Amino acid sequence: MANNKGNSLIFYMFELNTSCRAVYILIEELNIEATIQKIDMRKGEHLTDDFKQISPLGQLPVMIDNGLKLSESSAILCYLVEQYGNEEQQNKLMGINDIKIRAKIQMALYFNVSRFYKPVADWLRPQIFRGSRPTEGECLKLKEALRQLNSLIKSYSKYVAGSDEPTVADIALFSSVSFLQVLNYNLLQYNSLWNWLKRLKKSSLELPIGKSLISLQEWQEELNAKSNENDC
Amino acid sequence: MANNKGNSLIFYMFELNTSCRAVYILIEELNIEATIQKIDMRKGEHLTDDFKQISPLGQLPVMIDNGLKLSESSAILCYLVEQYGNEEQQNKLMGINDIKIRAKIQMALYFNVSRFYKPVADWLRPQIFRGSRPTEGECLKLKEALRQLNSLIKSYSKYVAGSDEPTVADIALFSSVSFLQVLNYNLLQYNSLWNWLKRLKKSSLELPIGKSLISLQEWQEELNAKSNENDC
Repeated sequence: MANNKGNSLIFYMFELNTSCRAVYILIEELNIEATIQKIDMRKGEHLTDDFKQISPLGQLPVMIDNGLKLSESSAILCYLVEQYGNEEQQNKLMGINDIKIRAKIQMALYFNVSRFYKPVADWLRPQIFRGSRPTEGECLKLKEALRQLNSLIKSYSKYVAGSDEPTVADIALFSSVSFLQVLNYNLLQYNSLWNWLKRLKKSSLELPIGKSLISLQEWQEELNAKSNENDC
Repeated sequence: MANNKGNSLIFYMFELNTSCRAVYILIEELNIEATIQKIDMRKGEHLTDDFKQISPLGQLPVMIDNGLKLSESSAILCYLVEQYGNEEQQNKLMGINDIKIRAKIQMALYFNVSRFYKPVADWLRPQIFRGSRPTEGECLKLKEALRQLNSLIKSYSKYVAGSDEPTVADIALFSSVSFLQVLNYNLLQYNSLWNWLKRLKKSSLELPIGKSLISLQEWQEELNAKSNENDC
């Protein structure tokens, strides 16, 4: 049974947006009954008057839950765990019983927003919206962001906030990395990152993460991206 | 008496960095006994081997507290409230008793990191590091960021997360805005933002905020910035 039977979470997402996909993975993991409203940014659906009533800047993702309207995917991730997770899930995904782990989860989420997410999005955008290749500058910024994520993971033993189980920070960062993997980006050179990705796929998040990868692969086939190795 | 007598918080900051200043305001508000290590980025002190032992990317701010090393200013803000705030402060500054307020505080903190902080920093950087004016593009991006912050404040009644008292999100955003004000940027045109700034100066955060403004004014005088109105 869904965790919020009777409640009314509405989640607005663009399927090819990394931040939206992170929230979607969590919704599946927490088994939240949600109305998913797909907004296709390629068709400009985020710019319609109807959608601007919900998100004045045309920003995605956005959720509305019992009168609370929230944007910023990391804030949504934290809210959903607090609102719908049981104590075990809250502890595992957000470290509610350990102030140091909790602080490191926040640090990794802010690292994603301030340093990692944008280089990935800038690299993806031309491929998603125009079917064209990213520029050399975009490639270099992505490489630097990957080097930084690799260092962050290397400094801990298992997951990005130093915990034994994956947290919301792993979900947020995985969501970005999964696009690179599906587009055959050469991630093997980032050894700690690569091993983290392998661990994550066999972790307690195996199911929602596997499902997320499958739906991305379908998009990749649609896109008919070239299938040989891609490290730019 | 300081809140953490006997503990050993070390806080590394560059005085002219908005994120560092936000944490410093909170340290004063919570009356935390901290060792403040000033790192002058204009002199390249963040690039020395010694500092790279602490912050491999030369990133500021960084704090070390009883073995916990933390970067990302918003993560530091939340950690310090949780670790050193009493229940009243935790409730006021982070909404621990109200899940909706707490979610909106996180949303506003992420808005600062993803949309507001960088346009302000890009506008400030040439003035701080080279004594030169920002470009037209930097001016336009700052105006757009200010319009967005103005809308965010307008959508609520008093503070940026919709609460009756200022929170860590107000501290983070104030810290950026205070540089604009001290450099005589014309903020009057952003009506809601202007009124928020006036409210904040008479709020429960009056003292640390006032002190922060005075120390910035001293810098502004040193810089000998032109004192007439500045809206670019």
